[in-house]
Amino acid sequence: MAERMARGVFRTEAPVKIKSFAAVAGEKEGQGPLGECFDEVISDSHFGMDTWEQAESRFQLEAVSLALNKSGVHKEDIDVICAGDLLNQCIGSAYSMRELEVPFLGLYGACSTMAEGLLIASLLTDCGLAQNAAAVTSSHFSTAERQFRFPLSYGGQRTPTAQWTCTASGAAVISREGCISVVGGCIGRIADLKISDINNMGSAMAPAAADTIQRYLAATGTSPADYDFIVTGDLGRVGSPLLTDLLLKQGIDISAVHRDCGAMIFSPEQQDTNCGGSGCGCGASVLCGHFLPMLEKGELHDILFAATGALMSPMSLQQGESIPAISHLIHLRKD
Amino acid sequence: MAERMARGVFRTEAPVKIKSFAAVAGEKEGQGPLGECFDEVISDSHFGMDTWEQAESRFQLEAVSLALNKSGVHKEDIDVICAGDLLNQCIGSAYSMRELEVPFLGLYGACSTMAEGLLIASLLTDCGLAQNAAAVTSSHFSTAERQFRFPLSYGGQRTPTAQWTCTASGAAVISREGCISVVGGCIGRIADLKISDINNMGSAMAPAAADTIQRYLAATGTSPADYDFIVTGDLGRVGSPLLTDLLLKQGIDISAVHRDCGAMIFSPEQQDTNCGGSGCGCGASVLCGHFLPMLEKGELHDILFAATGALMSPMSLQQGESIPAISHLIHLRKD
Repeated sequence: MAERMARGVFRTEAPVKIKSFAAVAGEKEGQGPLGECFDEVISDSHFGMDTWEQAESRFQLEAVSLALNKSGVHKEDIDVICAGDLLNQCIGSAYSMRELEVPFLGLYGACSTMAEGLLIASLLTDCGLAQNAAAVTSSHFSTAERQFRFPLSYGGQRTPTAQWTCTASGAAVISREGCISVVGGCIGRIADLKISDINNMGSAMAPAAADTIQRYLAATGTSPADYDFIVTGDLGRVGSPLLTDLLLKQGIDISAVHRDCGAMIFSPEQQDTNCGGSGCGCGASVLCGHFLPMLEKGELHDILFAATGALMSPMSLQQGESIPAISHLIHLRKD
Repeated sequence: MAERMARGVFRTEAPVKIKSFAAVAGEKEGQGPLGECFDEVISDSHFGMDTWEQAESRFQLEAVSLALNKSGVHKEDIDVICAGDLLNQCIGSAYSMRELEVPFLGLYGACSTMAEGLLIASLLTDCGLAQNAAAVTSSHFSTAERQFRFPLSYGGQRTPTAQWTCTASGAAVISREGCISVVGGCIGRIADLKISDINNMGSAMAPAAADTIQRYLAATGTSPADYDFIVTGDLGRVGSPLLTDLLLKQGIDISAVHRDCGAMIFSPEQQDTNCGGSGCGCGASVLCGHFLPMLEKGELHDILFAATGALMSPMSLQQGESIPAISHLIHLRKD
């Protein structure tokens, strides 16, 4: 039984652990400042497949396979896998799950999906349904640009606030055993401050992250100083200062402990990525490649991972709508 | 704590109940054989909004609002709502959840979404996270046809195996109290027998339903005779006999108890709907408008609701892929 701390906020009661994890990234991500941390760097953007969409599925399969290998868990022992991605109808996940043949809960939380998947996988482990559960998500620069912005061959100019969708995937296995505990979490609410620029997702998502982080801190009676890091997924260089500002207005100063996967994964000046990385695979691969290993080694003890998703639809934006955003949070602790 | 019966199959242990529910449908659905069962029939396909997509969000809001009103639960008392729909980026749900301001888990299971949402909402109630949870989903003929098939104004011919996407929404509130128990459920796996005809979804989905129903019966040691009905979401007139055939080959005869929401919601001969209804809103509205009231009144005692989803993407079909399908199941009992 989980303990309900407040609306949408819980602490786990049964042991819920991250047993193993893996991150796979593309060539550009491999050349960035975190390049060394990924389990594999795949230089072929097609990953040997015919289409980028198939390649994205293969990134997921590779991440899941590496995570399973590390813990010696077979895919037949996974009770449920929570997966999602950015593609229409979440086909990155549907086709990877077809190969795995594992009971599958499909999620759509845009770039918040890794946190949403970890939340659900953890709660299903807590409630007894799963002995082993898993969460995986992915993004691919070429599939996302084509779907959300311009065909790559068009060579469109990128605006200063634009972010670069990461080609990457992260996967984690949740179980009763492991050395990193899932302590609790917070389910996000939609925040929408009427941003409608598809190239300024950081600004659209910052209010959602602020709402979720504030709710978790309030419900648990903790403050930023209680955590080594409060990690967001892909707010980038514009969204990150907005988040700290929004929380500061509520008397919460996260500036010393805030880290953003999108701001960390590239060197914007050298890599021409403007405001940084984005995409489901950005937060997932940096969590599983960088932060979870630091927790495992005892270099970190307590982190909050609050991935943010811009639930933007090219069509609804053409219809005059703004971008609804959401952020789900998970609290991880080294035992 | 839920009891794990087999991989992806569980029985609840704590009381998990459907407290209230509601169904809202469009004009054509209201003119069908089940027209009397819906809480509201909305004759304006725009539901007073500027776009059909906004109308679909309003269908969801209306269904949730009616379900909450029936049980006297305020939206502020809902700990989490599980929602999804067929639209790219699930915008039907994102924009309705923006209005509700409730902690929100976004799902993508295509037409299986109502069962997926009920599963997750039930397990989060079982595990203690939620005192009140909700599940909602929707579909809209005009948004779905535009996205998946042809612009309506094109006036394309429909094939004999085509189904008619329902304009409808269903919502249910899950809690510790109520007169219908969520007894257990089964999380689906992807099934893909290489159907690639976007106008023959019933055939694509039947193997997924067969797999899920077989797994639940085997894990619980029950047989079709133990249930008043085994209800599928939208297999329609082509998919339904395929399901009974597939199960019969495994020695399971559901022919006496099988009902399909898609085959029930329209009179195909009078309403020109070929193989019947489809869409997330089809199964959800027939469950919440027809089957749950029968359970509530004691006219039924045990049913399985196995909604099926064709996770089809127009793009991946153009790329030569087939349609992956999934079916999630929930077991409901009158107390």
